Amino acid sequence: MKKFLALLMGLLLAGAALAQVKVVYHLSEGIPQASRAINNIRNHLAADPKAKIVVVTHGLGIDFLLDGATNQMEQPFAGAVGDLAGKGVEFRVCNNTLVSRKIAADKLVMEAKVVPSGVAEVAKLQAKEGFVYLRP
Amino acid sequence: MKKFLALLMGLLLAGAALAQVKVVYHLSEGIPQASRAINNIRNHLAADPKAKIVVVTHGLGIDFLLDGATNQMEQPFAGAVGDLAGKGVEFRVCNNTLVSRKIAADKLVMEAKVVPSGVAEVAKLQAKEGFVYLRP
Amino acid sequence: MKKFLALLMGLLLAGAALAQVKVVYHLSEGIPQASRAINNIRNHLAADPKAKIVVVTHGLGIDFLLDGATNQMEQPFAGAVGDLAGKGVEFRVCNNTLVSRKIAADKLVMEAKVVPSGVAEVAKLQAKEGFVYLRP
Repeated sequence: MKKFLALLMGLLLAGAALAQVKVVYHLSEGIPQASRAINNIRNHLAADPKAKIVVVTHGLGIDFLLDGATNQMEQPFAGAVGDLAGKGVEFRVCNNTLVSRKIAADKLVMEAKVVPSGVAEVAKLQAKEGFVYLRP
Repeated sequence: MKKFLALLMGLLLAGAALAQVKVVYHLSEGIPQASRAINNIRNHLAADPKAKIVVVTHGLGIDFLLDGATNQMEQPFAGAVGDLAGKGVEFRVCNNTLVSRKIAADKLVMEAKVVPSGVAEVAKLQAKEGFVYLRP
Repeated sequence: MKKFLALLMGLLLAGAALAQVKVVYHLSEGIPQASRAINNIRNHLAADPKAKIVVVTHGLGIDFLLDGATNQMEQPFAGAVGDLAGKGVEFRVCNNTLVSRKIAADKLVMEAKVVPSGVAEVAKLQAKEGFVYLRP
C-alpha cells in the first residue's frame, strides 16, 4: 500500500511537472503593494511566459484598479494593467469591498472583473482550480 | 503516458471540485491584521458557508485571542471569536510564542487551542490535510 | 464516479500523510521579516525535523543574505544562516533583484544560490515540486 501511494504521488508530481503553472497573486494592502506586484508579475512572465496569473484584490488592494489610479511616483497604473491583461493576466475585485467602501463598479478600469468575495476567490482558485498562492 | 497523466490530473481537479474548501488563515502581525481577518472570515463564510476555516496564530498574531483583547476601536474581540467558533472556525495558538512571550495558556480565550508550533501547523495543514493558504 | 473521485482524493491525502513536508518561506520585506523568519524556521525544524525548507528571497528580502548583514540588534545573520544551511535549509536569491539593485552576486553569503526570478521560483516550487507556502 505504501508503495502504491508513493507511486501515485510520483505520478502526480510528474503530471504537475507537465502542467501549466497557475498563480493567484493576493493583494489587499494598497498602492505600494500593487506597485511591487506589477513589477513582480512582469518578472514572473519574463521567467515563465506560459504562467497563468490571476490577481485577486480586496480591501485597499483594489485601489490601483480604480480609474485614474497612480503609483507613489504619480505614474498611472492604467498602461501597466492594460499591458499585463494583454498577456493574459486577469484582475478580480471583491464586491464586498466595493459595497463596504461605497465604490461603484463603474469606477473600476475595464480590465477588472468583480467577484462576490475576494478571500473566497483566493481560496477557490487554490482548492478547485489548481492555482498556487503568492502574496507580493 | 502524457495522456494518462493528463487524465489523472483531470480526475484530481474533478475530485477537488467536489470537495469542501479548507483554508488556513495565517496570522502573525497583531491587532490590525486580526481585525481584517475577522472581517475577511465573515465575508468568506457568507460567500461559501461550507468552507472549513482554521486560524493559526503565532508571534503578535495571538494577541486578539487573549482574554479581554480589544480592537483598534476598543471593541472586544470575544463576541466575534465566539460567533465564528459557533460556525465551525477553529483558532490555534503557537506554544513557542506563549513560552517566549511568557504568556500562560489560561490567559487565552476558551475557543483557542494551543499547538506546539504555529509555522509547523500552517505547513502541516497544507501538506497533510488539503488546506489552502491565505494571509489576511 | 463520485465514489471513485472520493477514493482517489482519499488515497492522495493518505499519500500526502506519508510524504515529507516541503515548505517555501517567501521573503521580500527586509531585515525585520528576515529576523522573524530565522526564528520561525528554527521553531519549525524543532517541531518537524524532517521538514524540507527552502527560503526564496527577492526585493528587500535578500538583504539578510548579503555579506556582513546584521539584524536590528546589530547581530550578524551569518551564524544563523550557516546553522540552518547545515540542517538542510536552502536560501535562494532573485537575479532580477540583483540586477535592478545593482548588487554583484559575490556580495552574497556562500549559502545563497541565485535563481532567475524569485516569484517564478516560489510558484514553481509549489506547482511542480509539492511545496506549500508560508510568508513569515
